[in-house]
Amino acid sequence: MYSFKNDYSEGCHPAILQALIENNEEQHDGYGYDRYSQEAAELIRQRLASPSAAVHFVSGGTQANLTVIASILRPYESVISAATGHILIHETGAIEATGHKVEAVPTPDGKLTPSAVLGVLEKFEAIHMTMPRLVYISNPTEIGTHYVKDELIALSRCCRERGLYLFMDGARLASGLCAADITLPDLASYTDVFYIGGTKSGALLGEAIVINDPALQENFSYNLKQRGALLAKGRLLGIQFRALFKENLFFEIGTHVNQMAAKLAEAFRQLGYYFLTNSSTNQIFPILPIGVIEQLQTKYDFYIWQKLNDEQAAIRLVTSWATQETTVDQFIQDLTEAASRE
Amino acid sequence: MYSFKNDYSEGCHPAILQALIENNEEQHDGYGYDRYSQEAAELIRQRLASPSAAVHFVSGGTQANLTVIASILRPYESVISAATGHILIHETGAIEATGHKVEAVPTPDGKLTPSAVLGVLEKFEAIHMTMPRLVYISNPTEIGTHYVKDELIALSRCCRERGLYLFMDGARLASGLCAADITLPDLASYTDVFYIGGTKSGALLGEAIVINDPALQENFSYNLKQRGALLAKGRLLGIQFRALFKENLFFEIGTHVNQMAAKLAEAFRQLGYYFLTNSSTNQIFPILPIGVIEQLQTKYDFYIWQKLNDEQAAIRLVTSWATQETTVDQFIQDLTEAASRE
Amino acid sequence: MYSFKNDYSEGCHPAILQALIENNEEQHDGYGYDRYSQEAAELIRQRLASPSAAVHFVSGGTQANLTVIASILRPYESVISAATGHILIHETGAIEATGHKVEAVPTPDGKLTPSAVLGVLEKFEAIHMTMPRLVYISNPTEIGTHYVKDELIALSRCCRERGLYLFMDGARLASGLCAADITLPDLASYTDVFYIGGTKSGALLGEAIVINDPALQENFSYNLKQRGALLAKGRLLGIQFRALFKENLFFEIGTHVNQMAAKLAEAFRQLGYYFLTNSSTNQIFPILPIGVIEQLQTKYDFYIWQKLNDEQAAIRLVTSWATQETTVDQFIQDLTEAASRE
Amino acid sequence: MYSFKNDYSEGCHPAILQALIENNEEQHDGYGYDRYSQEAAELIRQRLASPSAAVHFVSGGTQANLTVIASILRPYESVISAATGHILIHETGAIEATGHKVEAVPTPDGKLTPSAVLGVLEKFEAIHMTMPRLVYISNPTEIGTHYVKDELIALSRCCRERGLYLFMDGARLASGLCAADITLPDLASYTDVFYIGGTKSGALLGEAIVINDPALQENFSYNLKQRGALLAKGRLLGIQFRALFKENLFFEIGTHVNQMAAKLAEAFRQLGYYFLTNSSTNQIFPILPIGVIEQLQTKYDFYIWQKLNDEQAAIRLVTSWATQETTVDQFIQDLTEAASRE
Repeated sequence: MYSFKNDYSEGCHPAILQALIENNEEQHDGYGYDRYSQEAAELIRQRLASPSAAVHFVSGGTQANLTVIASILRPYESVISAATGHILIHETGAIEATGHKVEAVPTPDGKLTPSAVLGVLEKFEAIHMTMPRLVYISNPTEIGTHYVKDELIALSRCCRERGLYLFMDGARLASGLCAADITLPDLASYTDVFYIGGTKSGALLGEAIVINDPALQENFSYNLKQRGALLAKGRLLGIQFRALFKENLFFEIGTHVNQMAAKLAEAFRQLGYYFLTNSSTNQIFPILPIGVIEQLQTKYDFYIWQKLNDEQAAIRLVTSWATQETTVDQFIQDLTEAASRE
Repeated sequence: MYSFKNDYSEGCHPAILQALIENNEEQHDGYGYDRYSQEAAELIRQRLASPSAAVHFVSGGTQANLTVIASILRPYESVISAATGHILIHETGAIEATGHKVEAVPTPDGKLTPSAVLGVLEKFEAIHMTMPRLVYISNPTEIGTHYVKDELIALSRCCRERGLYLFMDGARLASGLCAADITLPDLASYTDVFYIGGTKSGALLGEAIVINDPALQENFSYNLKQRGALLAKGRLLGIQFRALFKENLFFEIGTHVNQMAAKLAEAFRQLGYYFLTNSSTNQIFPILPIGVIEQLQTKYDFYIWQKLNDEQAAIRLVTSWATQETTVDQFIQDLTEAASRE
Repeated sequence: MYSFKNDYSEGCHPAILQALIENNEEQHDGYGYDRYSQEAAELIRQRLASPSAAVHFVSGGTQANLTVIASILRPYESVISAATGHILIHETGAIEATGHKVEAVPTPDGKLTPSAVLGVLEKFEAIHMTMPRLVYISNPTEIGTHYVKDELIALSRCCRERGLYLFMDGARLASGLCAADITLPDLASYTDVFYIGGTKSGALLGEAIVINDPALQENFSYNLKQRGALLAKGRLLGIQFRALFKENLFFEIGTHVNQMAAKLAEAFRQLGYYFLTNSSTNQIFPILPIGVIEQLQTKYDFYIWQKLNDEQAAIRLVTSWATQETTVDQFIQDLTEAASRE
Repeated sequence: MYSFKNDYSEGCHPAILQALIENNEEQHDGYGYDRYSQEAAELIRQRLASPSAAVHFVSGGTQANLTVIASILRPYESVISAATGHILIHETGAIEATGHKVEAVPTPDGKLTPSAVLGVLEKFEAIHMTMPRLVYISNPTEIGTHYVKDELIALSRCCRERGLYLFMDGARLASGLCAADITLPDLASYTDVFYIGGTKSGALLGEAIVINDPALQENFSYNLKQRGALLAKGRLLGIQFRALFKENLFFEIGTHVNQMAAKLAEAFRQLGYYFLTNSSTNQIFPILPIGVIEQLQTKYDFYIWQKLNDEQAAIRLVTSWATQETTVDQFIQDLTEAASRE
């Protein structure tokens, strides 16, 4: 049984594992003061072309989201998010647990636009409502779509005009960047904070929080410690992110997962199937007859995302750094046969 | 420069690294539903002789402390802790950030006693004060001391008589258990919740929270997710704890760190030096002339714990799974020479 | 300029003022231990026919809502509310500030139904989502509608079958009860907690929280103190609620405000105007031509609730214990003249 | 039975009651936008000689403390307080419930000094400890002592040099100011925020929060609403504070309560009794033989504050706006007789 359930089914990329093996016996200072964490942060700053960015490594995405948002907002300030946003749907109220409301905005494609943001601001009434202060976007989104540069610039401009911070959840940023015309320097320019996902891009664990706005950098580490997000052996995160950014591993992984997903998607398309969302990233949501799904389930593991009617459902397939092209080819062959039997 | 600063200076024990290498390519379910996490939990339950214990793996000690305490207490309930307790001193208000007060009790040795606990209860006034509800102890303590079985039983009995939960922070539990007559089954019997430290006992990261009280087990995982403590690749924790408990690695490490610390301590004692605290665990606090400290600092890294006067200070030396006996012997030789020069 | 903006524009009902004057010089214990608070609680229990109900007096509605909800929920549990619910719209994130998410359910009329509640439960996914645990309803609602007994019973049954608490916000309960077939004993039977609004029913301030479920009664006062909701001179609340419930003042006020609102509504209806919502309580939302609104604004103060198009808007008129029938008659005359001029 | 238990045993001062009666039927805007709240704020600003001060009215002291402190601090920042501070002892963890740690400093007299504050700062370690950011003082203190101007200036200077905010809890400020050389303009100059207690100085309820620091004024009302501290009928607070400050009522009450307490204290002194603390304010703590206490208890109600040994205890006597000199004279006569019988 091969799993396309998600991009965190395997351990880490061999190059990352090798780096962990090589440095295992060395002694280093704790809590991120080790040489590798410092180097990894510097490598990321170079990629961003932003010498003043602050870079902090944490264990996971929910931890990154709650620590960043709680560090920025005053008690009465709230977050604007697409209704499909991870913080609204799959983080067990982590943001609310830090005291902050998240305003859900329905969207057709999981992406926020200036007009969606302005719509929330228009309904705002002083004092009796929380004050929207931070716009949360996921790139790529939870449904596989991604932002392009013009969209990012427009959203960034809107936020700055209205005194809102822009925070990008980049749990799958490698896939998102490799699917679009947005670069890391663009993220340094057009967001206030974002994070670079490691867990879903070949690391054992780890997300790199990048704080662009100098005012938001101050004392951020205290928040990490307070929320239980500061690892004693911080080297574990530093070594992995150094391996991802020393050369091009991060982008190679992003390219690979997108190519594998694109090959899968093309096969569905060739067979005449449609998709629930328009994805060029490593999550695709083909709509299939129940019969085809049941045949695939005998050899593959994946989520049934949404039942559409008695005959059809959308499934989710996710590719990872470990997804091999031969596996994809085999899947396509199995799919083709299943489709022909329907 | 060799470091005795702490027990998290190196990576992980070779046997743990080997386990991570072997299983790296396998596909597993996320969020702790992998086979290794299940096996590790079962191994721990067997060691506890407690089939009904709930075992959860998290990344670090502050995370374990805040998640456990916030999951147990009602909003108006508070924690009793020795004034030296880690949650009071070195966790940046993590417990208060979840809304709960921690009552500090001064102690001579970092350990709570029934009379110390009862002293807090006597000052309690209904409604206008928080209601003490959980007793937090560290074993070993932050200053190297440890509980023995009779002390644990007495404290446990006191807590149960007064309706208090007993929670043990076991960040260095391997060292603590190997220094005393307390067993894992004792912890299952005499505490309500405790955690087994992995980070400071040879793992890359990880603490195993054990919930003995069935009433406290319910829905605990929601708290983990909400606090950002649930790793997507939960296997990373499961594989490591399986390696620690499959055979005797956890206790071998505890024995080793204590032996290395004891050898160091004996050398100080032989040279006529005293100690700030009475430790049989892997943290020792010898009191040395400033001149001796300065000589040692040319070859070794360690914390100056407390200046006592113009001539003397207590230093902290910590041993780890990676501390080799030859290194200890060399340190003792260097110490002896430094002392002779004073 | 006469104001129909709300039901808290004036001070308190003369009978309440008289009670405050009479008892002003007496000495009483603080924090609700005074004789009047005890008597008021007992009077309310008698009205409820529920000798075991716990009654607590607080200053305002937001305070009641946040204290009750925070006292009931575990950290990972959430609230289900109509999207128009006061806690979602006009309390500046007070519930989220205590750490809890509120799930908004769109409704046609501001009222929750079993099917609306079940719809939220169906989307629930364990661990990664907050667990819905409390259903919040306002009666009357924020848009003037109210529950009838069958609706309340159905909702209560649904909640009990699904392990949900039912909490009723009764900021305008006097008006709500006098508009429907629901009695105070019904509230004791079919809700777990509710509060009786005093501020909007003739008191200077004050809401009476009634906790029916014995398990939720325990230690509730600690929550009040912790949230700043326990008045030193608790007598101020006790005296007022005693005045409201010693005889029939509470219900007389409810009947009066409804009659005044009904008379206004009938006048709009006679003139051929429609309403935004179907209200029999003391808030009505007639839809008027802009020209009529502008004429009325020269003599009356009220909220323009919602602009419908360039020609029409819904306004909100609220009646209070102090609204006199002569004022209502004058308003109707002015309205009729304004309408005739359009 | 006459009660000296506290200064909130009676209703409000007759002049305040009269003002409430006179304005009862008037219509006013809610939530502090009424004319009386505006006038009261302006009167207070005039007394402070500080036209830019922001003045907000809330219901009680715990509410004032938690709202102010939570509005100022970032999540990782903490409060320094004397160990006897009200927020540490008698507010059921209200500050911790907003997420913030309070550092307790033992003092001989309930007052903080620059050296006490610096002592906390010296123990501070970056990142792993909360950052002290606000100094909380009560004036008068919980044990009847009060600050004089030189002490206030020294503390203020220390705070400003070290980047700490100075917040004064003035629950009994009338008594405190009338006992010392500190004026309201001094409070505008030397604190960042303070509050003027109304509940314990003749009002039915109410505290006036004064925010001197312009940076702390911004959006403060949102915090009030979020914490349930914004009364719909804000007029109730405005009318009372207007009555207190329109002429000299606030200071007359402060002078009166101090005089009555001083007369009581002098009687104890004449009879040779000592005091637990050195108080010139309206709370005194004479140390009496148990026999004398028992005799007084037959006619008077008061707290036994602290048992000193088998023969002696300190009691607390508190005077209020309503304490009449004839009552004090009678008490002194009863005391003298009781003492003579011992």
